[in-house]
Amino acid sequence: MLATIMRAPGDVRCEEVAEPTIQKPTDAIIRLSASCICGSDLWPYRGLNEVNEPRAMGHEYCGIVVEVGSAVKTVRPGQFVVGSFCLSDNTCPHCRFGFQSSCEQREFMSGAQAPFARVPLADGTLVATSALPADDLIPSLLAVSDVLGTGWYAADAAGVQEGSTAVVVGDGAVGLMGVLAARQMGAARIIAMSRHKSRQDLALEFGATDIVSERGEQGVARIKELTGGVGADSVLECVGTQESMGQAVDCARPGGKIGFVGVPHGVTFDGQQLFFQQKSLLGGPAPVRRYLPYLMDLVLDRTINPGKVFDLHIPLEDVAEGYRAMDERRAIKALLRV
Amino acid sequence: MLATIMRAPGDVRCEEVAEPTIQKPTDAIIRLSASCICGSDLWPYRGLNEVNEPRAMGHEYCGIVVEVGSAVKTVRPGQFVVGSFCLSDNTCPHCRFGFQSSCEQREFMSGAQAPFARVPLADGTLVATSALPADDLIPSLLAVSDVLGTGWYAADAAGVQEGSTAVVVGDGAVGLMGVLAARQMGAARIIAMSRHKSRQDLALEFGATDIVSERGEQGVARIKELTGGVGADSVLECVGTQESMGQAVDCARPGGKIGFVGVPHGVTFDGQQLFFQQKSLLGGPAPVRRYLPYLMDLVLDRTINPGKVFDLHIPLEDVAEGYRAMDERRAIKALLRV
Repeated sequence: MLATIMRAPGDVRCEEVAEPTIQKPTDAIIRLSASCICGSDLWPYRGLNEVNEPRAMGHEYCGIVVEVGSAVKTVRPGQFVVGSFCLSDNTCPHCRFGFQSSCEQREFMSGAQAPFARVPLADGTLVATSALPADDLIPSLLAVSDVLGTGWYAADAAGVQEGSTAVVVGDGAVGLMGVLAARQMGAARIIAMSRHKSRQDLALEFGATDIVSERGEQGVARIKELTGGVGADSVLECVGTQESMGQAVDCARPGGKIGFVGVPHGVTFDGQQLFFQQKSLLGGPAPVRRYLPYLMDLVLDRTINPGKVFDLHIPLEDVAEGYRAMDERRAIKALLRV
Repeated sequence: MLATIMRAPGDVRCEEVAEPTIQKPTDAIIRLSASCICGSDLWPYRGLNEVNEPRAMGHEYCGIVVEVGSAVKTVRPGQFVVGSFCLSDNTCPHCRFGFQSSCEQREFMSGAQAPFARVPLADGTLVATSALPADDLIPSLLAVSDVLGTGWYAADAAGVQEGSTAVVVGDGAVGLMGVLAARQMGAARIIAMSRHKSRQDLALEFGATDIVSERGEQGVARIKELTGGVGADSVLECVGTQESMGQAVDCARPGGKIGFVGVPHGVTFDGQQLFFQQKSLLGGPAPVRRYLPYLMDLVLDRTINPGKVFDLHIPLEDVAEGYRAMDERRAIKALLRV
């Protein structure tokens, strides 16, 4: 089959590889209904993470189960499933605590920018629908796998609740999903920080009540102005740089919470500053598995439409163009038709 | 009157100073029933914080109101009051959010190691009892002002709840109060990290279920062992060094919470490490005012006896000996009779 391989920064393409096979009794093989490119795939693409050997790209996925290992009990061939980008057994103490992304057996999914993929720890990772979903729901179900689940975790970690004032730092796909999540959680005010018209429009569509186009100190000043000098109850940090993190911390009110889901690159916190600012921090790879059943239901009953975040739909073979478009910020997020 | 002045690191003594007077309409003057020395007073005493000018020491206090400014409405002369070491108006948005220690008008109390003290922002800071308390309750009521309130905040920020497993890093007075707080909040297991017999004994008396005398990596390994390899739900960091903070973070389970109340000195956090560890952080000067009424009631009805943390009672004139005893760890916390 043709699958996506990255050989070096900037060098990503479809290559002929062997179809995946069951390697452990806990594996499943799925035929993907669609795949996509993640903002985090751009870190190695841009040379900010090392690429020491050819990498099978792609960790967001949904599709039809075609084969399961002998130990798999909860899904069976023919079922439509969505899984988390973090593979988990969903039975260890960390999973039971709701932090499946720190599962004792955690692995990260790979090789999903392809027609078929192997999903390890299938029982703990995959959630099946009761029937095959309508085709038009595929993009939204795919979004649940990572980008929506991650935005949801940002809002959850930031303690968004009914009536909250929430700020979203980062207008990438995850930030936009954070807006959608904050809206679903009942935030009264959702301020999206974005400088790009098309992303601002999408943020408003997903539920943002205000747009702030300033950044850094000016951005923080604007947030203070919009919140009567107080700052936000909840801040969703969806970038991962020192600048964006500083901005996120400064936008929160004392006692406010920052949920950070942009993988930090070169970020440090000063303990004494954090102490006197009294801001609460929680971040990490999202425990998407915790939210999967709930979020899949929201999609299936058409309460939410996160699939709109895919503003570029291309065939899998054109994956290189998808990376380029996202790298150049011509696209927010590229869906790969398989 | 004779009051405590620090002129330089190591140089602290009672000196003759003018009695405090009302300076603003929102002030109150109190006659102290007792005062005490705080672990944080040792930072400048040890030269770890600068002492650029003579400092009127002491920020923990309870006593009888002798005079109030013209704007003070909620307390009156003759009443017994306890106040927070953080002075707050208790009406600004941060106060109403429960973070009085970030009050828009925040000041830190000073000059309380003395027979009389001026309390700014009296209405927002002081809480009066309905009657004069019994003498034997004075140490416990004094403890509420900072050391208990701070230990309580550590437990609260660490999310201690019914059935939690809590670890307390630091066996100073605040750590011991953290043990008491975790017990009151219903923690099922409270592991105190302490190497000193007398402090271990007091920790057990305040409600610790386990003592771990190892530190650093060995200490973390022991906590993991005691928690079935999982780590603690809640960790109270009550020291403030890089070593203790690292130990606290490593003792928490993924998704666990660290409440840190030891003022960080030279502490930094690596963003990516914090991200992949998925630990929640909240620290700061404790919003004692939030807890004051509740904690005073717990003392008045003799549910708790935090005053036991004072293992040295000396006259105010001997304050220098109190500092020495605490600096040399001969005493956990010195109460000053005024």
